[in-house]
Amino acid sequence: MKLTEEQLASYHHDGYVLLDDVFSGDEIEILCIALSEDQRVPGPHLITENDGSTLRSIYASHTRHPVFERLVRTERLLDPARQLAGEDLYVHQMKINSKQAFGGERWAWHQDYIVWRDVDNMPAPSQVNVALFLDDVTEFNGPVIFLRGSHRLGTLERPGSTEGHESGHIDPDEYSLTPAELADLVKQHEMVSPKGGRGGVLLFSSQIVHGSGTNISPFARRLLILTYNPVSDAPRPVGAPRAEHLAGRDTTPLVVDSGPLDRR
Amino acid sequence: MKLTEEQLASYHHDGYVLLDDVFSGDEIEILCIALSEDQRVPGPHLITENDGSTLRSIYASHTRHPVFERLVRTERLLDPARQLAGEDLYVHQMKINSKQAFGGERWAWHQDYIVWRDVDNMPAPSQVNVALFLDDVTEFNGPVIFLRGSHRLGTLERPGSTEGHESGHIDPDEYSLTPAELADLVKQHEMVSPKGGRGGVLLFSSQIVHGSGTNISPFARRLLILTYNPVSDAPRPVGAPRAEHLAGRDTTPLVVDSGPLDRR
Repeated sequence: MKLTEEQLASYHHDGYVLLDDVFSGDEIEILCIALSEDQRVPGPHLITENDGSTLRSIYASHTRHPVFERLVRTERLLDPARQLAGEDLYVHQMKINSKQAFGGERWAWHQDYIVWRDVDNMPAPSQVNVALFLDDVTEFNGPVIFLRGSHRLGTLERPGSTEGHESGHIDPDEYSLTPAELADLVKQHEMVSPKGGRGGVLLFSSQIVHGSGTNISPFARRLLILTYNPVSDAPRPVGAPRAEHLAGRDTTPLVVDSGPLDRR
Repeated sequence: MKLTEEQLASYHHDGYVLLDDVFSGDEIEILCIALSEDQRVPGPHLITENDGSTLRSIYASHTRHPVFERLVRTERLLDPARQLAGEDLYVHQMKINSKQAFGGERWAWHQDYIVWRDVDNMPAPSQVNVALFLDDVTEFNGPVIFLRGSHRLGTLERPGSTEGHESGHIDPDEYSLTPAELADLVKQHEMVSPKGGRGGVLLFSSQIVHGSGTNISPFARRLLILTYNPVSDAPRPVGAPRAEHLAGRDTTPLVVDSGPLDRR
């Protein structure tokens, strides 16, 4: 699956592009079953709510479950991402976040790349993020909100951030924008939040400023986020690298898989 | 100003109706200046953020400032409310809430009338709420969200609520719906959040289930909420009534004022 010229232009101008109905309802079902299977594997990649069983986040399912291993190679995701990056890709990070009903909290406004630069020593902002809607995304369940076109501003340095930061603990608050900064940015870059049915895919730049609101709906909302990185842009950690489920180390170029997700 | 047959039908069917551009930009300016003047009057009606100066809520400005005294009588608000209630009205409560940028928190899902019934001993759910947009209301700054048509369900009793509750402290959490209740309700009553520019007016039933999300935008969002109550429906408190800025005791029928808001 290739992006059209118009979709490419839209991504480069706005910093994102939304593709509706990339996966069918049956395929999303397959992914959700695979998720429930993978959730049974304990480990540091699994983050639950305080009840110890409700999913909050799960990392790197593509390294444990064949359905997700195929997903990250599926032509419908890998082809557009390669088109945008113009290079061979590997998976830097894959996670599924479940934003809880009523309680799913907002995410502060931030850019992704600056964090990976500082924590992983990632050389360049060439990543393509792929958000796959496992549930319908509406204005009521905390959709991602972008500042349209803000990826063109480049890396917005933070007072607390330092290029070449040694790997280790990163305080996300150090990387969030202040209301004053955001008030200034929205004069040029309006807030937009692409929404759509389950099975939709949102491609976005690792340089775009984004945040999200709360999930005020009565249903949890699951979002799969996959970060492709060019093989040539693999991190060069100064100290010990981060855990592999947070920053993938297998930089073998991904090869497109055109088969169904659930074949045996 | 009278509501059309279509607007009346919409209110009775959905539990709310949105009227765009009821007040001009100049009139909203007059109201905002009056608000900043009224904010200088100290007292329990004024609730600030932790910094002691940023407005969170202010009650009963119509009892202190001539601009708001006229506002509650203006034909553009009072006529539609009388049409909906079919009776003479007085002001039960008037407040202006400012939902802070980044930090303005969500309001739990609830109905209004049940609280006034229990805390004020209000006989019937005949109130008409009027929300006047002092700032643009968008999907990003925590708009009110309704369950469309849920006012037709009547009063949804709460485990913690008791009819004839004595006046006093009410825990709002006692009156909020659980995710399970809400999940059931949204099967029949979809979530909707009417939005629009400053100067718009949202009329809504005191029985409609509503909540709101966070304000993720960089600007505070001010909303004026006026509750008209029929004179015949005045509370009959069992013990001491609530403070007058929370529950108005002047039940003199309001008379329409057709003049400009800021006349001397």
